[in-house]
Formats: sequence, C-alpha cells, structure tokens
Amino acid sequence: MACRASFMRVASGSRALLLTTTTTTTHGGTSSIGPPPPACLRYPAPRTFMQSAGRRRAQLTADAYPELRRDERFGRVTGEHVAFFKQLLGSGSAVVEAEADVEPFNEDWMHKYRGQCRLVLRPASTDQGGNTGLVGGSVPVFDEIVVSMARMNRIHSFDDASGCLVLDAGCVLEAADTYLADRGHVFPLDLGAKGSCHVGGNVATNAGGLRFLRYGSLHGSVLGLEAVLPDGTVLDDLSTLRKNNTGYDLKQLFIGAEGSIGIITRLAVHCPQRPAAVNVAFLGLASYPHARRAFRQAKAHLSEILSAFELMDARSQQLVHAVRPAEKRPLDGDFPFYCLVETSGSNGEHDYAKLEAFLEHVMSEDIVADGVVAQDATQIKALWGWRESVPECIGHWGGVYKYDVSIPLPDMYAIVDDVKARLADMGLLGDTDQHPALGVVGYGHMGDCNLHLNVAVRRYDKRVEQALEPFVYEWIAKRKGSISAEHGLGLAKKKFIQYSRSDTMVALMKQIKHLYDPNGIMNPYKYI
Amino acid sequence: MACRASFMRVASGSRALLLTTTTTTTHGGTSSIGPPPPACLRYPAPRTFMQSAGRRRAQLTADAYPELRRDERFGRVTGEHVAFFKQLLGSGSAVVEAEADVEPFNEDWMHKYRGQCRLVLRPASTDQGGNTGLVGGSVPVFDEIVVSMARMNRIHSFDDASGCLVLDAGCVLEAADTYLADRGHVFPLDLGAKGSCHVGGNVATNAGGLRFLRYGSLHGSVLGLEAVLPDGTVLDDLSTLRKNNTGYDLKQLFIGAEGSIGIITRLAVHCPQRPAAVNVAFLGLASYPHARRAFRQAKAHLSEILSAFELMDARSQQLVHAVRPAEKRPLDGDFPFYCLVETSGSNGEHDYAKLEAFLEHVMSEDIVADGVVAQDATQIKALWGWRESVPECIGHWGGVYKYDVSIPLPDMYAIVDDVKARLADMGLLGDTDQHPALGVVGYGHMGDCNLHLNVAVRRYDKRVEQALEPFVYEWIAKRKGSISAEHGLGLAKKKFIQYSRSDTMVALMKQIKHLYDPNGIMNPYKYI
Repeated sequence: MACRASFMRVASGSRALLLTTTTTTTHGGTSSIGPPPPACLRYPAPRTFMQSAGRRRAQLTADAYPELRRDERFGRVTGEHVAFFKQLLGSGSAVVEAEADVEPFNEDWMHKYRGQCRLVLRPASTDQGGNTGLVGGSVPVFDEIVVSMARMNRIHSFDDASGCLVLDAGCVLEAADTYLADRGHVFPLDLGAKGSCHVGGNVATNAGGLRFLRYGSLHGSVLGLEAVLPDGTVLDDLSTLRKNNTGYDLKQLFIGAEGSIGIITRLAVHCPQRPAAVNVAFLGLASYPHARRAFRQAKAHLSEILSAFELMDARSQQLVHAVRPAEKRPLDGDFPFYCLVETSGSNGEHDYAKLEAFLEHVMSEDIVADGVVAQDATQIKALWGWRESVPECIGHWGGVYKYDVSIPLPDMYAIVDDVKARLADMGLLGDTDQHPALGVVGYGHMGDCNLHLNVAVRRYDKRVEQALEPFVYEWIAKRKGSISAEHGLGLAKKKFIQYSRSDTMVALMKQIKHLYDPNGIMNPYKYI
Repeated sequence: MACRASFMRVASGSRALLLTTTTTTTHGGTSSIGPPPPACLRYPAPRTFMQSAGRRRAQLTADAYPELRRDERFGRVTGEHVAFFKQLLGSGSAVVEAEADVEPFNEDWMHKYRGQCRLVLRPASTDQGGNTGLVGGSVPVFDEIVVSMARMNRIHSFDDASGCLVLDAGCVLEAADTYLADRGHVFPLDLGAKGSCHVGGNVATNAGGLRFLRYGSLHGSVLGLEAVLPDGTVLDDLSTLRKNNTGYDLKQLFIGAEGSIGIITRLAVHCPQRPAAVNVAFLGLASYPHARRAFRQAKAHLSEILSAFELMDARSQQLVHAVRPAEKRPLDGDFPFYCLVETSGSNGEHDYAKLEAFLEHVMSEDIVADGVVAQDATQIKALWGWRESVPECIGHWGGVYKYDVSIPLPDMYAIVDDVKARLADMGLLGDTDQHPALGVVGYGHMGDCNLHLNVAVRRYDKRVEQALEPFVYEWIAKRKGSISAEHGLGLAKKKFIQYSRSDTMVALMKQIKHLYDPNGIMNPYKYI
C-alpha cells in the first residue's frame, strides 16, 4: 500500500519549494491485503473516521496531531512552480493537480493518516525526476508535494550467473519476483503486500518480511543503489558486484532511512537461486517454552532449508476463526500456541525427508502436541492463510492497536501476558461491549525474534491507549528490544526512538540527517 | 597477520598527541599463512629488503613512499604522554615502550611496510582504552602510537536460539569459531588467517573470505557494534536483534571503514547453524567458458548447500607443483582451468547425492573434463591445499605483484590473458632469468566474481610495475569492476580509488570522514 514521505527542493530564492514524495511501498508487513500501518494511536486525541459518500476518510493528520505545526520556512506551491514542473517532466500525466487524482496520495490504506498535498509529480527517470526519487515513510502531513515513483519501473538487467538484478525503484515487488521466477531465481524479500509495494520503498524502509530467516537483511542483499540527494546530487553507488571494498559503504545509510536523506531511484539486488521445493507444516503446542524448543529443533534439523518459523497464539487463531467460521481449522484440537514451519530447498525429496525427521523428533519428544503437513500448493496457501490473515481479521471488531517489536526470544511472548493482565486489571479487556478491548494477541516471525503485539478493540479508547503507552515501550526498553523491528519510524514512532536508542546514538543520527539534508526538506515532520 | 592503522588522540592543548592502533586482522585473504598484503608496489622506488641478523626487514614506508610527509600538526610522544597512558591503562603490560617489543607492530607480515612507531597501547576495556579501539589498515607510516586490541578478547554471550554471539573486537577468529563449534554453530566468515586475525579487524576491513558465497556479507551478519569515535564518544550500537528499524544504521559505516572514523571494540554477530556435512570436489576444465558453465550448474544443482566455488588457472597450479613437487596432484591430466567446489549442509547423504547429480550432469555434458571428490577430512584438506597455497607458493621465486579485484563474470578471466600478453610483448615475461616475470596467474572466488590476479616475479622491477599500473586499474574501471574486492584500500590503494568510485562518491566519502574525524587523526595517510 501507499507509503509516502515528503521532501522539499530548495528553490533558487531564499524560500524553499515544498515537495512530497510518494511511493507504493511497505513496512514489511505480512497482511495479505497490505502492510500493517506504522503502529497505532499514540496521541491523546482519538482519531475518528468520517463517513464521506460511503467512503471512510481519515481525520486530517494535522488535526490528529495538534502538536505538529507546518514549517513556515517551506514555501507554498504556486502556478509558477507547477509550470516549472510541467516543463521539467514533459508529459501531462507526470504532473497531477486535479483534487480527485491527488487525494489517493494523501491517505494511507488504513485511513489513519491524511495529508493536504495538492500536487503529485511522477518522474520517468532520475534525470527527469531531477532532485526526486523514492522515499519510504507515510502520507504527507501538510501541503508537501507528492512524487510518485510509479513510472520509474523498468528492469534494466539480470545476470543469472551472479544473480544480480538491476531495476528501478518503482518496480512492483511481485513483478520483479515473477521476472526472476522465469529465470530460476527469487527476490530475497517476500511479503503480503508484494502485489502493490515498490522495491524502492522496500529498501527505503528496510522491509523484513516472511523469508528474512532464509535470505537475511537487505543490508546484505542490496549490492548497489542510486539515489538523489536533497541538493540534487545523484549518488551513483550502483555497483553490481558482491565484493567492493573501496571506501565507506554509503548506500547502507539509505537502506532504512525512510527517504529522509535522499530518494532511492535504482537498485542492484543479489537474488538467490529459486527453491524448487516448498513444504509447510502447521503445529499445535502446549506452551511458549514448547514453541522455543520446537524452533531450536527446526534450526537443528532443517538448517539451510528452514525459510520461515512463524508463531501464532491461541487468541489470534480464535479471532481469525470468528471472522471466517466456514473455514476448517488446520488442527482439530485447541492449543495455546501454533507454529508454521516452512522449508525451501532445491530437492523436494530431501527436504521432505528432513521435515519428516524433524516432525518425528518433536512429536516423540512431546515438544509438539499435534501437526499437519501441506500436501500441495493449495494446502500450503491455506496454512499460510491462518498466519497471514491475522492482521486483517483482528481489525474486524472496530480497530487494532499494533506494535511491531523485536524482543530477545526468552522474553518475547511475556509482553503479551503482561499487557493482557494490565488491561484486565484496569477493566479494559473483556467479552462484553462495556470493555473497549476484546483481545490481546501475539504472533509474528519467531525465527527473527520479531513479535507483532496487537490489541483488538471494539472502539478506540483513550484509556486503552494510555494503558499501553509508554508501558509497552518501557517494557521493551528494559529487555533491550526494539520498538520497531521491521516497520520503521515514520510519523508514528518518531518521538519514541529513545526507547530503543541512546541519546548518543540519536545525536549521531541527527548529525547524518543534518549532513545530507541541512534544510530538513526530506520527509519533514517524520523519522528523526 | 598484523594489520594495523594509526590514529591520534587530540590532546587538551592545541597540538595533538599521536597514537597508532594495531590489531591482528586480515583483509580477507586466503593464504594459509596469513592474508595477502594490501596489493603490491605502486610507487616508483622499488622496495628492497634489508637483511638484518638473518631477518628480512622492510624498507621504511616513509622512504618507499617519498611522496608521504609526516603531518606536522600531529604531536610527538613525550614522557608526559607515556605517564598519562600508564595512569589510564594501569597494568604495566598495557603500555609497551621497549624497542624490541614495539618493532613487531611496525612491520607487516610480508615485510613490505615498516613504520616508526615508538609506543604501543594495549587497552583491556572500552572504558580503559579511552578513545581507542580497532582499526583496519596496515602498519603505521610515521611515529603514530599503536594500540593493540589483543587484550580485549572476551566472548561475552551466545544465544543458541537466535545464533547471536557478542564478543570483543580482539577475539581471534578461530577461537570464536571453535567456541561456536562446541555449540553447533559457525562464524559466518572463514579465511586462511583465522588462527591469528581478530574479528574486529575482519569487520573493520569487511573481510570476504572463503564462504562468502554461503553466508554473505558482514553487512548482513553483523547485528551490532560498539566503537570509540575520535573524540572519545562511545558509539553503542550493540544490538543483538536481527531486526531493528529505528533510525539510520550507523554501524554499517564502520564495516569496511578500516578504522578511519572510529575503533571497533565489540561486536554482535549472527552465527548460523554449523553444517554437519562438508564435501569437496576438484575439477579439471578445458576453458574459462567451461568453468562459467560449471558454476551455473553448481548453483542450479547445489543451491543452498553450495558454500564455495573457487577457480585456479593452470599456471597457478604449475607454480604450486613446482614448489611442492612431492605432493601428488589431484588430477592426472593437465587442464587449462581447475575448480574447487564445496558443499556444506545438514545431511551428508542428501548433500552427497546432490553433488553426485551435479557431477554426473557436468561430466555427461562435457562441461567438466575430469574430477575427484574427497572421501574424508584429510582429502578435503589436501584439495583445499591446492587452492589455499597459491598465494604462498607463487612468491617462491622472489616476489609477487598482487591485485584483488572484482570483475563481472563474463570478463573476469580476460584480464589475466591481457596482462600476460602485455608483459610478453614488452619482453618482461619469460622462462629465463633475463625476464623479471615468470608467471601471470589468476585464481580466486569465482562464486563472488572475485579474482586474485598475481604476477610472480624473480625480482621487483620498475618496468613490470609500470606495465601493470595503471593498466590493470584502467582495465577494471572500463568493465565497472572493483579495484579492491575484499582487501580494502589501506595505504596501497588510497590513490587509486577513483578507478572504482566517481568523484561524487569520493567527495561524499570525504564528507563522512570529515564529519567523524575532523582532525584527520584516525588512520592518517591512508584509506581516503
């Protein structure tokens, strides 16, 4: 879904011209309909949804975040500016002014954030885009100009010996992966939003996704990158080589920078051999310690073919079942925890033998209480459905408070119990309508120590929010976890970074921001 | 072997006090006795070796590089400074002044570089080390103070569920790997120098090594890092989490920075499950295109278990054979090229079956002319010996001009032919003593497009050097290769960076250097 950020180009005069850059991207979410929004409400004013001609519209972000003020150093778009962009970008469709066409760029897919942008630019090349490019982040806050990267969507080259793919930042992830599939390779990132997210946005937000366990971080997979800096400089770090030790690896700063120091326009990515065989098992377990033991055994038995180890608690599966009662649950019994184990390898027979040995071991040792293994692609999809539909289903009753966090494995699930107890003690959690919250669920990428802590609510309620924050962030800080595992900071977590980073680190980050963007025109009001 | 760099600590007065930091590290070389030196002669004056009491000593770097001048903004060590360090570091052994004890820190293992340091510091902790830490690079040039990290060598923690190892920068790589072996895991880096190199130096030089193909870049494996900045600030980015999207990933700048902006003192590294089974095959091939086809087939058949694909040309093997005539060559016939293929997996039977299928395919398709497969650990070691001993053996006749480069695979080997033809045309290459050069060889990590181009010489000769440089760098620049794949810049390649990086990129790198080290006290005279 749309994940946007803003930047402003310094005009020749003393005032700056305000631009906003938009790209369809993702924070690495795992929903089948798009990524989760960047965390949830954290400001006092509960954000209400306005019904408009049958369409739910978000409150203006500027109203929902009254602390935010438009930076009056930034200029306002004039007819002169628009004429300039039309001259620069040529094609009529590259400069979007009509309100109805601009509006989709102002709002996120969850209808939680709404900016007031009045101009969208759609460059077709780095040169033409000028000082523009790809920026991760969220919707504009005020009247930033949006720059959509959708037209920069060419695949430039693929070398099937080295596995290096060179492509524009505006390429859709799934399109890139389909291109690779035809050539026996795989994009080293996969996530629910792949049908709409752009690879440039994936890199700008350092998306994690479903197969991080197997293919690792984008910091390792991205071989090269082209970006446009705030002053218009084109940073050409588009190496296609796996090894290149010639000076500082500057491109790394742009991976996960959410467009705050430059706009990614092109990428070179190392793409592995595509696995010929995929297997999926769905397990029921008696406790979280059992799940931890199962993960250890999975690592030991499956090693190089283990591509996902996902955790879902009982409540998450109950809520999915409540929304989709017609669908048969994978296991007959009820279990406190479920795990989805996936293998991806080059030899189906070998992989299945390894998976069987793993399953025999964990069953005979009573680590796993029950389990099923998918027999075909349809069953694989069905089993993944019980994991991937969690984010969507739990929003069914009204809303969700969402936290995407990393916590060392021994403590990882304890936060769910503690939050549940806290909300229950405060009378905020219960089965009847008088309680705003109806469920506290934990699920996520156990293999990466990455938990999605979600609180399903019947309605947004200031008391729930106050019970959760800063409680959750303090809880995580105490265990040296991360308040943002794979979703980034955006607007939502900007003010909470100190829970995961020391003052020294934040100061050093601000130094980098100031170095590249002294006027603060890239993605203003967000990130850091 | 010792890989060192220099930094200077700003004293309270207007003059600065000069320090040099030393750590046993590596540039990712593959020699069994230590890493290759950072490239070879590139300045007009041929460096001669002085015999001193039976020990070969290098010419002073300051004499070999007459262009270099000591930076007179830097202070000189006084008794007052030494007293200060003794007070700061406490233990007597932490401050080394005796010439015989200091001298080993002044010279590299190839006896090519020799500095004039008179003081070595050996901090035992980040606090005690003060503004010191780990720096990649080479020996000091002038009278920088050396700081050895050898005493900071503790393993702090290992989590066998997540695979995260936290250890001091001064830990020896092999010691870390042995510790992990006992716990069923493996360090994601391996190289010939592992018995002496420090992990901090590995990270500071972004070492590549032998299993890069399998475990990827340190940019992906290093989860966290602690470093001391030139002004004494401790950068605490020691996250143990695989996912942590909270601001700029500053630690990435220190990976491969060769200590030029700070000294790495501690690391958190993601360590994979240790492979239970290793297989090695040694193949003879009719041409370089055959080797490329074999690599493609290895990727297709071996996929997730392919851990090394190494190339050696005929000349490299002839020279090894000439030095070790008693050792039986792996294959009976002579072939223009040889490849070493290694698999590492969790199931020996499965892996062997995959390897057999690969070998049957490449033999039946006439891609490979002949081959052997090791039957036990001794044979594995013997086969690797024919690859790993190349750097050592080719120095047998007098010296070696060494280039560690990345070149896109289709063109990779052509540079060897072109250099051979050029030297032959110029009458510099031949079988008789009148020719300074006796062999031009190519070998290296084919799986990473990383070639080691070596010219074996009977004696160093200015004409050979002039024939090679800038010819080699220009050749690589034309093919968008890298003049330093895994060995870094150090002192040797500082002035050649423009062959791999644009002026814009170099300017942006200098900006980073200036941001962190405005006085230029870290690793002076080197890197950038």
